[in-house]
Amino acid sequence: MTATAPTRLFHFVAGNTGPWRIEDARWICGDPLPAATHISVLPDTAGFQASAAAWSLRGITSNERYVTRAEKSALLARQQGLGRAQATRAALIPIRKNAAWWALTQDERRQIIEDQSRHIAIGLEYLPAIARRLHHCRDLGGSEPFDFITWFEYAPEHGSAFDELVAALRASVEWQYVEREADFRLIRNME
Amino acid sequence: MTATAPTRLFHFVAGNTGPWRIEDARWICGDPLPAATHISVLPDTAGFQASAAAWSLRGITSNERYVTRAEKSALLARQQGLGRAQATRAALIPIRKNAAWWALTQDERRQIIEDQSRHIAIGLEYLPAIARRLHHCRDLGGSEPFDFITWFEYAPEHGSAFDELVAALRASVEWQYVEREADFRLIRNME
Repeated sequence: MTATAPTRLFHFVAGNTGPWRIEDARWICGDPLPAATHISVLPDTAGFQASAAAWSLRGITSNERYVTRAEKSALLARQQGLGRAQATRAALIPIRKNAAWWALTQDERRQIIEDQSRHIAIGLEYLPAIARRLHHCRDLGGSEPFDFITWFEYAPEHGSAFDELVAALRASVEWQYVEREADFRLIRNME
Repeated sequence: MTATAPTRLFHFVAGNTGPWRIEDARWICGDPLPAATHISVLPDTAGFQASAAAWSLRGITSNERYVTRAEKSALLARQQGLGRAQATRAALIPIRKNAAWWALTQDERRQIIEDQSRHIAIGLEYLPAIARRLHHCRDLGGSEPFDFITWFEYAPEHGSAFDELVAALRASVEWQYVEREADFRLIRNME
């Protein structure tokens, strides 16, 4: 790892200013976070004043834990990156899974995620409309309040498709292991 | 995660004092670490003076990434914990895998680790003599010099068995992806 390697660590900082305005904050389960009106997504190298934030979360991108080569090929063939001009809507969904989840073995977690819950297949159905980046928090070394943070971007006309996507996942067996979840819907500030 | 949860983060600190004396420092591949004579293993909550250390590494225990339920049951039936009175020998083996490894998908990594390399089965053969704790470094958020740190403990009479174990792993297909590795053999200081 050199100093020129792209950062994998991102901060999600909430306050009263920032490039993404919170249109709706939904507390799906578990304790809510303090109120805020805007969210910024900052790579590790960017400084920010934590004292000015209502809250901040951090997560790191990593190797995939469940996806097979065939699934990865299908995803790569359809997915598009973050930052598309038309993608003026975003969602920030931090989740924490319970102790029972983390006590499962790899084959058991994969069985629940895909065989029972079709998590990867459902995500594929919404490509390329919904772009996504997953960040891991659980092994950052501290006592992080969430295990994962997923960031989604889409155009306004795909807002209802996004609602379908998260509803399908929340109805799955996998989500029975989720003990804390928030869902922030965001609108990009126009220059 | 509460303040009473046991820490999963450990520091491995090398210097000129500590409970484990370095009997042998082997640089298997990649850059060596600075010279030292002793190693301490400290949970996150314990303070230490980094300035007094020749080097320090850190890693976090986490959920298993490859083991199936059947393999886990076999491991649990045979393994013993760290800290056994007769286990006066230890080994600290930090490794880093290359970019090609991290670009593999889960099924490909599992295929190499177990189907081709028998990593889990080989470890099982040396239980309960060789006790082991795996720590992950790659997703700690910074630019860690290694991806994994494994700590082993065994009685003096199992030293040659430990040599066999690491030789078998280093001869495996999995180890073709290792780009940096050190191997410290340690003797516990007697009170």
